[in-house]
Amino acid sequence: MKSLIKNIGILVGIDESGRDRIMGGEMKNLATMTDAYVICEDGLISSYGSMKDLPEGRFDEETDARGGAVLPAMCDSHTHIVYAGSRETEFVDKINGLSYEEIARRGGGILNSADRLHEASEEELFEEAMPRLHQMLASGTGAAEIKSGYGLSTKDEIKMLRVIRRMAEASPMTIRATFLGAHAVARDYIGRQGEYVDLICNEMIPAVAAEGLADFVDVFCDRGFFTPEETARMLECGAKFGMRPKIHANELAASGGIQIGVAHKALSVDHLEFTGDEEIAVLLGSGTMPTILPGAAFFLGMNYPPARKMIDAGLGVAIASDFNPGSSPSGNMKFILSLACIKLRMNPQEAINAATLNGAYAMGLQATHGSVTKGKRADLWITEPVSSLEFIPYAYGVSLTAGMILGGKRVL
Amino acid sequence: MKSLIKNIGILVGIDESGRDRIMGGEMKNLATMTDAYVICEDGLISSYGSMKDLPEGRFDEETDARGGAVLPAMCDSHTHIVYAGSRETEFVDKINGLSYEEIARRGGGILNSADRLHEASEEELFEEAMPRLHQMLASGTGAAEIKSGYGLSTKDEIKMLRVIRRMAEASPMTIRATFLGAHAVARDYIGRQGEYVDLICNEMIPAVAAEGLADFVDVFCDRGFFTPEETARMLECGAKFGMRPKIHANELAASGGIQIGVAHKALSVDHLEFTGDEEIAVLLGSGTMPTILPGAAFFLGMNYPPARKMIDAGLGVAIASDFNPGSSPSGNMKFILSLACIKLRMNPQEAINAATLNGAYAMGLQATHGSVTKGKRADLWITEPVSSLEFIPYAYGVSLTAGMILGGKRVL
Repeated sequence: MKSLIKNIGILVGIDESGRDRIMGGEMKNLATMTDAYVICEDGLISSYGSMKDLPEGRFDEETDARGGAVLPAMCDSHTHIVYAGSRETEFVDKINGLSYEEIARRGGGILNSADRLHEASEEELFEEAMPRLHQMLASGTGAAEIKSGYGLSTKDEIKMLRVIRRMAEASPMTIRATFLGAHAVARDYIGRQGEYVDLICNEMIPAVAAEGLADFVDVFCDRGFFTPEETARMLECGAKFGMRPKIHANELAASGGIQIGVAHKALSVDHLEFTGDEEIAVLLGSGTMPTILPGAAFFLGMNYPPARKMIDAGLGVAIASDFNPGSSPSGNMKFILSLACIKLRMNPQEAINAATLNGAYAMGLQATHGSVTKGKRADLWITEPVSSLEFIPYAYGVSLTAGMILGGKRVL
Repeated sequence: MKSLIKNIGILVGIDESGRDRIMGGEMKNLATMTDAYVICEDGLISSYGSMKDLPEGRFDEETDARGGAVLPAMCDSHTHIVYAGSRETEFVDKINGLSYEEIARRGGGILNSADRLHEASEEELFEEAMPRLHQMLASGTGAAEIKSGYGLSTKDEIKMLRVIRRMAEASPMTIRATFLGAHAVARDYIGRQGEYVDLICNEMIPAVAAEGLADFVDVFCDRGFFTPEETARMLECGAKFGMRPKIHANELAASGGIQIGVAHKALSVDHLEFTGDEEIAVLLGSGTMPTILPGAAFFLGMNYPPARKMIDAGLGVAIASDFNPGSSPSGNMKFILSLACIKLRMNPQEAINAATLNGAYAMGLQATHGSVTKGKRADLWITEPVSSLEFIPYAYGVSLTAGMILGGKRVL
């Protein structure tokens, strides 16, 4: 299978350096080529260049980009899209000024999503989650991580992870699965948090590993959730079963989560609303990707994480959607690019790097995804004609997607 | 021509009260009917009801809403979509921390849009603006106001208004045109603001009126732009030529713009970031619709106007997109609904009322647009299936549009 994308107005994100991620001052550089083509063979990018140098040849599939931009398909490294039922009631309760406790009493929060997920069949969950994955694809995303964490029992966590496996099989997107049994303490274990941690380590992680259902292990390490000590224990247990950590940290407080993540070689630490000089110092020189989820700060009205400060200090950052029913009911990575520019004061190049190669790194996919590189997967986002790459985040309310190519094939 | 929309999951915004707008505590009420149909005849809504009571009959066009919601098409009462060239350079300059003055020097601001518009032909402006109007339609908007104001000379203001007239003819949407020669002082008149006001009153307004190009007259009455006295003079002049005022007020300061608008029976006063008790008192009991543009506050990072306080004080408010290349490059009213809920703390019903009947009022279209009412125009927004009407603003990153019906005909 050989395919061609021609008449590309701007080809964005070319990188033959072999680097695994993009850090600090480098983030504002993003190589582009105007009036370009890309040739894909057997699912991989085999060559690209200027239209005037387009080689003769026959192609099984040709796409005319009609002057649109072509970017590496985005890599959304943090989502929770397997859930039963949206939570707009809670959204209205928040508008009306109800407290977190009142909202939980009326049916909000993670535990209530867990109650509803418990009632839903694997088939129902799959049917409900696939359209969310399709929305993500339509916004320019080609690879995504999906977490469990609304199960909170061995049986229901396994059910969620099986749904994620089915989604990976059914979708042309690249999917990575994360076990997040430690999303909250299950209702039956409230007041017995230690026993719930025991359950995760002694029963859930081995069961998940036995079916090979998870690439990563995640813990919500924050004030009111799991302590750094509990987090360490669960990460060590996950590691024994081959799951690398990716953790929720410092959303609600300077919880020590970043430090514990780095100490356990987490692939990423995510959220980071409370990140100061000490946390930045710990991240510098580590292999851990700080991952910022501006959709949640936008939707909940929290302060945004200090992305500008982190990049200026030399860190690379990734951005992801955090698509979930409570704090960010959207998987629109195109809009996340806009939020990164408008609210995090990242420039468009930084935002695109954060959503592509750095997002790929945060899923361990940097060797195959996240840049326009010969030999990498041909996962490409084609936009409507744009005046510049900066136009993409600037036009914050417009989809701009004209097509998606995954593994060299047109899927949208 | 007789058409049917059937299998409507939730029919939203039914109103047979005959009221012209929705004020204060009433804004949180929004009448709905589940499992409904709507019948349109000769472009108007002729009946609606429960699917179980659907009358027998033959229809020229049938639309199956498949369980989606049907709402009155939105009425976007404040846009500036005729312009030559986007301004993403300025967007990047802002991210990089440049001051307003530096940005203006590098080619930002209204005066630079005026320079570019001066170079563009009527044909070019039309071709560039129509896709923007289409984006608005795709987000659920059926009626829109479009302003001049990047001309700033008699010739170029007339050129813009002719483009708006052509757009009105070419689009199935209902369009209202506003003369905004007083958007800024033209470059040639800097330092001679009084003479520019003379030009507007003595030359521009009569010329615009002679061709019947504008329904409304608008002035940017704010700190650094036009004074209340100059504003009064231009509004009086416009009124003599049959143009009702709709003005920009209190975006940058408590400028007295709201008072001058109400005193001159403005249909709307728009922006209102600086609105206190005194301004609210003036608006109460007036015929002037306070119109809030949350996209600009979002995009520029300004404080949001006190919509909650205004509604709680008994006012009706409208929301609009302010689609323009500098401060809000998006005409996505679906997202404006989300911003109204997330950032202005309006509940979903209030946001929908603000974007429909109150938006219609702010364009003088309340007798024919903005609600599901027998005898009103059949302008209807059909969404994908949704769990509730609250889901619409909650799902902030998703388009949800499944179809648009304008004047009883399927246009999308």
